Amino acid sequence: MGVADVGEFGLIDRVTARLTYGSSCLLGPGDDAAVVATPDRRVVASTDVLVEGRHFRRDWSSARDVGHRAAAANLADIAAMGATPTALLVALCAPTDLDTAWAEELADGLAAEAALVDAGVVGGDMSASPTLTIAVTALGDLDGRAPVVRSGARPGDVVALAGRTGWAAAGLTVLSRGFRTPRLLVEAYRRPEVPYPAGPEAARLGATAMIDVSDGLLADLGHLAKASGVGVDLRRDAFEVPRQLADAARALGVDPYTWILTGGDDHALVATFPPAVALPPSWRAVGRVAEGARVTVDGDAHDGPAGWDHFR
Amino acid sequence: MGVADVGEFGLIDRVTARLTYGSSCLLGPGDDAAVVATPDRRVVASTDVLVEGRHFRRDWSSARDVGHRAAAANLADIAAMGATPTALLVALCAPTDLDTAWAEELADGLAAEAALVDAGVVGGDMSASPTLTIAVTALGDLDGRAPVVRSGARPGDVVALAGRTGWAAAGLTVLSRGFRTPRLLVEAYRRPEVPYPAGPEAARLGATAMIDVSDGLLADLGHLAKASGVGVDLRRDAFEVPRQLADAARALGVDPYTWILTGGDDHALVATFPPAVALPPSWRAVGRVAEGARVTVDGDAHDGPAGWDHFR
Repeated sequence: MGVADVGEFGLIDRVTARLTYGSSCLLGPGDDAAVVATPDRRVVASTDVLVEGRHFRRDWSSARDVGHRAAAANLADIAAMGATPTALLVALCAPTDLDTAWAEELADGLAAEAALVDAGVVGGDMSASPTLTIAVTALGDLDGRAPVVRSGARPGDVVALAGRTGWAAAGLTVLSRGFRTPRLLVEAYRRPEVPYPAGPEAARLGATAMIDVSDGLLADLGHLAKASGVGVDLRRDAFEVPRQLADAARALGVDPYTWILTGGDDHALVATFPPAVALPPSWRAVGRVAEGARVTVDGDAHDGPAGWDHFR
Repeated sequence: MGVADVGEFGLIDRVTARLTYGSSCLLGPGDDAAVVATPDRRVVASTDVLVEGRHFRRDWSSARDVGHRAAAANLADIAAMGATPTALLVALCAPTDLDTAWAEELADGLAAEAALVDAGVVGGDMSASPTLTIAVTALGDLDGRAPVVRSGARPGDVVALAGRTGWAAAGLTVLSRGFRTPRLLVEAYRRPEVPYPAGPEAARLGATAMIDVSDGLLADLGHLAKASGVGVDLRRDAFEVPRQLADAARALGVDPYTWILTGGDDHALVATFPPAVALPPSWRAVGRVAEGARVTVDGDAHDGPAGWDHFR
């Protein structure tokens, strides 16, 4: 059954029936607006949009996968401020012939990913559109901490990574070459494993700057370096190439470091810490903040594109 | 110059340079997320999406107009909860050949409308898309009051309206017939005049239910009546037809009450109040809450469609 058959309000009823709201939700979908608890007296808020053909393909990802990924991209932005995610709002623009099951499974994926951090989908909007588009806003709470911004890195700080990079990019390369395996890589692209708790953890440890890796590690460190007025030097040997990535890279004729250093979509977190901080197991030192303005690997510029620009 | 020429980050720089953030903004655009003050320890949040060809046309509205309307639609949802808007987040999906000036003027319109209530555009996202799409999330503060939901109306309550209805629908009819005048009606469609302060005012007066009129007065009262388990009867004579609407209706062969009772887009607020409440000038009694489940006008069903469904 297509969304046009059940209508806007019929579809909203079907979708909201499947949602969970999380413990911060004081008033969920069905009114003019939702109400979410913000015990800290501040709310952290971020918006990310996914456009079919650019951020996802229906033949590469199930609706549930797209829901997981749309939620993860936004929840990771909240974690990258050192905050705990509390709620999502979702605007779905869908072709009128979209199957209602697709919208329902999208909602399932959004709700399941949000549930990992006790957040929920508390509101949204729907419209017909020629282009399937999902705009998600995530909210979060700082629990009394200062937000960890991009601009606080200082020369001498340690650059550390939580989560993995390169896996989603490898999965995307696999899919774009027409393959469906290795399944582990394809799944990494379809449903990123975001280290959400590492964000607030970094804030508690005194991280001086943090960003989520969505454009690629080098590109996102470039944003951080620019905002902080510093340079960053990564150690290549800090990035062990996992066997699965090495095997796939060899089979596909790709340099695995291109995936690791320039692939987005895993939504790892990268942060800078004062050198005295003892990093817990979730954070792995991968480089140093330096004077200057360049992002380098072992002192040299990385060859090739650093990451992703959505208009190019 | 097209957005593809300046790139995603170039466009973000150009747009954010034009924004104002409002006094609730603690951290504005340029990081992974914004931080907004929520002194009430709760945040009100709502998302609305505008799709070109469905919610606006570039030959009918300037970019600045679209910005005003996109902001207004969302800020009105916050006001309809009895809350004061504090911030907007905006996701823009744009064809790669969109002129950067269009995006910049959209930002001007969004910022100008938000500035009416001391709110600002604190964050956002951009992507290329074949379909020009603007998804806006609005945040607001309840200042210690209970949210005014849709479900609190009781038989005997007075139904009252703040703001005007029918003007935007008349302007849309004018445009859709190929005319550009009367200018007053066309402007009403392009830039709705939302009675933002009337929302918190209604909450302070003890409104039992409230909704913003975006689908049409009868349709939105239908949502309110359904949520409250009541009926609503409007008095037709409570709706004086303004001369400008009467003239345009006669010229275009339209019943002006169709505009007034079923037109959305003015973003008036409609609320129910206990009968003892003395209504201030901003609120005008237009009917009564009744037993039952129907929305009627002088006791009879209104002929014709009640409002808008975005998938039909």
